[in-house]
Amino acid sequence: MQKKYLLAPGPTQVSPEVLLAMAQPVLHHRAPEFAKLFEQIRQDLKWFFQTQNDVLVLASTGTGGMEGSVTNFLSPGEKALVVNGGKFGERWMKICQAYGVKVEEIKVEWGHSVRPEQVEEALRKNPEIKAVFTQASESSTGVAHDIRAIAQIVRNNDDCLMVVDAVSAMGVFDIQTDHWGLDIVVTGSQKALALPPGLAFVSVSEKAWRRADKAKNSRFYFNFKKERDSQAKNQTAYTAAVSLIVGLDASLRMLKQEGLQNVFSRHRLLAHATREAMKGLGLQLFPKDSPSDALTAVVAPEGFDGQVIYRDLRVKYGVTAAGGQDHLKGKVFRIAHMGYTDVFDVIVGVAAVEMVLKGMGHSLKLGTGVGIAQEILLKK
Amino acid sequence: MQKKYLLAPGPTQVSPEVLLAMAQPVLHHRAPEFAKLFEQIRQDLKWFFQTQNDVLVLASTGTGGMEGSVTNFLSPGEKALVVNGGKFGERWMKICQAYGVKVEEIKVEWGHSVRPEQVEEALRKNPEIKAVFTQASESSTGVAHDIRAIAQIVRNNDDCLMVVDAVSAMGVFDIQTDHWGLDIVVTGSQKALALPPGLAFVSVSEKAWRRADKAKNSRFYFNFKKERDSQAKNQTAYTAAVSLIVGLDASLRMLKQEGLQNVFSRHRLLAHATREAMKGLGLQLFPKDSPSDALTAVVAPEGFDGQVIYRDLRVKYGVTAAGGQDHLKGKVFRIAHMGYTDVFDVIVGVAAVEMVLKGMGHSLKLGTGVGIAQEILLKK
Repeated sequence: MQKKYLLAPGPTQVSPEVLLAMAQPVLHHRAPEFAKLFEQIRQDLKWFFQTQNDVLVLASTGTGGMEGSVTNFLSPGEKALVVNGGKFGERWMKICQAYGVKVEEIKVEWGHSVRPEQVEEALRKNPEIKAVFTQASESSTGVAHDIRAIAQIVRNNDDCLMVVDAVSAMGVFDIQTDHWGLDIVVTGSQKALALPPGLAFVSVSEKAWRRADKAKNSRFYFNFKKERDSQAKNQTAYTAAVSLIVGLDASLRMLKQEGLQNVFSRHRLLAHATREAMKGLGLQLFPKDSPSDALTAVVAPEGFDGQVIYRDLRVKYGVTAAGGQDHLKGKVFRIAHMGYTDVFDVIVGVAAVEMVLKGMGHSLKLGTGVGIAQEILLKK
Repeated sequence: MQKKYLLAPGPTQVSPEVLLAMAQPVLHHRAPEFAKLFEQIRQDLKWFFQTQNDVLVLASTGTGGMEGSVTNFLSPGEKALVVNGGKFGERWMKICQAYGVKVEEIKVEWGHSVRPEQVEEALRKNPEIKAVFTQASESSTGVAHDIRAIAQIVRNNDDCLMVVDAVSAMGVFDIQTDHWGLDIVVTGSQKALALPPGLAFVSVSEKAWRRADKAKNSRFYFNFKKERDSQAKNQTAYTAAVSLIVGLDASLRMLKQEGLQNVFSRHRLLAHATREAMKGLGLQLFPKDSPSDALTAVVAPEGFDGQVIYRDLRVKYGVTAAGGQDHLKGKVFRIAHMGYTDVFDVIVGVAAVEMVLKGMGHSLKLGTGVGIAQEILLKK
């Protein structure tokens, strides 16, 4: 017998309340009971996104929402600026390229945040750029980009949209969609919303909707205007992923009860405790600039393989975290602290890392990181 | 207090076994436990589709699978033949048009099946046609098309793919993917597989994969070759809809235990009982040709509004069936008998229809249809 602990940067843990809500008999997506539920959810998503814009619900994972954020707003041959500082920055590039959108790339070394001046300069040099694509939190590196500062630059340009992949950011830290002027913001169900994967959410500004009228890329399943018109009537254009939507309602209720600022504070505290614990163990954090409060990417100590740390966490202790992606494979391991996570998820994660490293021959003193985390978590 | 009965043509009822499986803590889609589960599922889906072809699992509803069945195999400017005999035939047309594929349409009057000779003639007149798109079961009309006969015509043409929307057919009645030579077959989770909506499945033949190498339409989220290569390693290309996939495993186990031929016999019997009960009540079935065993579309009797029948079933008796779509709105109502349905789902449906019609002033004798259904269902 071995208990399991899910501390991966998505999917994240799902609360018993949400699991039970989803275990109810299936609703029909064209029945009034569903419409009533969906109306409430539409309101709650605006609250969650801090916006008055439409927030579309899509039956796909976050990548589908990202694809639609390209195809609905850009035509083949138009130019986009992509901030590429990790696996998900690369994904924006690949989607643009798959749909004939020319890409001006800001290559950011993995582990760093983009400097807003880089965006400013790229826009000045390429006034034909129609949209800026970036991550709020880059899950592959554990780094946050300064969305507020970038948006301030982009919004000066009447003809350029600010598009944010906030998949591992929305509901983790403050993303002020309307106040900062974010045109398109994408998130997914399996991060801070603490649902299973299978839903994407996209908020779309008026400025972006005007662009959508002219965008010539092909789209059907991810036709945002069609979804907007259906969802205004509390229906989805195609069959809704009803069980996940019922779970979403339960999740949003829990988040509303906690309050958005408290949700952010909780994530900030858990992230801070994790980072300080790792540093206290003599480990180095991978992010060189702003670390994301969603997850902590830790450099595997000299002579220790990050993939073995990741594997031992899972096999020996039932803790599913994550390894490194692409060229970071073996070099880092990643522990998430977002969604349905609390004080003792951090304690479990830190304790397990200590025990795994000890088992691999590291000289650390057991309990060091845990003690540091406890000290910080006492403040909750 | 009013108990609810879901008898809609999708989503269909989900068994307690599957609901409980999905209520388990979330698995991580990159962990070995998931890979092991997914390997089993890939085998079971081949059994379910009666094929040795790859069967891809997508995080979307059936429409996403349909879109990918166009974009991965056809280039803009190429020509497709679409059998359009209802709402879902229309959807094939709209998807093709959205992606620049020219459509040769066989317009089939709603309620009728396409005659295979019509396909033969269209292919003779338009030898440049690269794919034939059709439904196995058209949910909007309750009609089945003769896929076997159509496929026999199409497979004579080396350069033409046979593409079947089997969303409300696969697992309801016999669809022999390999034996009949079906190149691309699409289904969804919320029909005979008796899961919540959110997964699409697509089987792809070798002939179709060869075509995919040349197809120039844009695709990213629904990039089938990328999915094939990932899924061969028991991973999905992007995040998997893990809770639905865990439910899928439970559902496939139940279907395997029952046996495919028994699954088909059960659906045949339930459909037969429903149809005979309706006829025994003096009601007319909407299908003029082969009715589908997935659902029964019934013409609302003279002077009775089909939408009121649909509404009263739900509001007075908690039975969610379906009304008519588009020009059939008010003219028909539809009761499904697919997926996790058995003898007493039919009895409930027929009894509720009798009680609703009686309440609306119809002169039928209560119990007439129920008795006829019982007589037939005794054979189970």
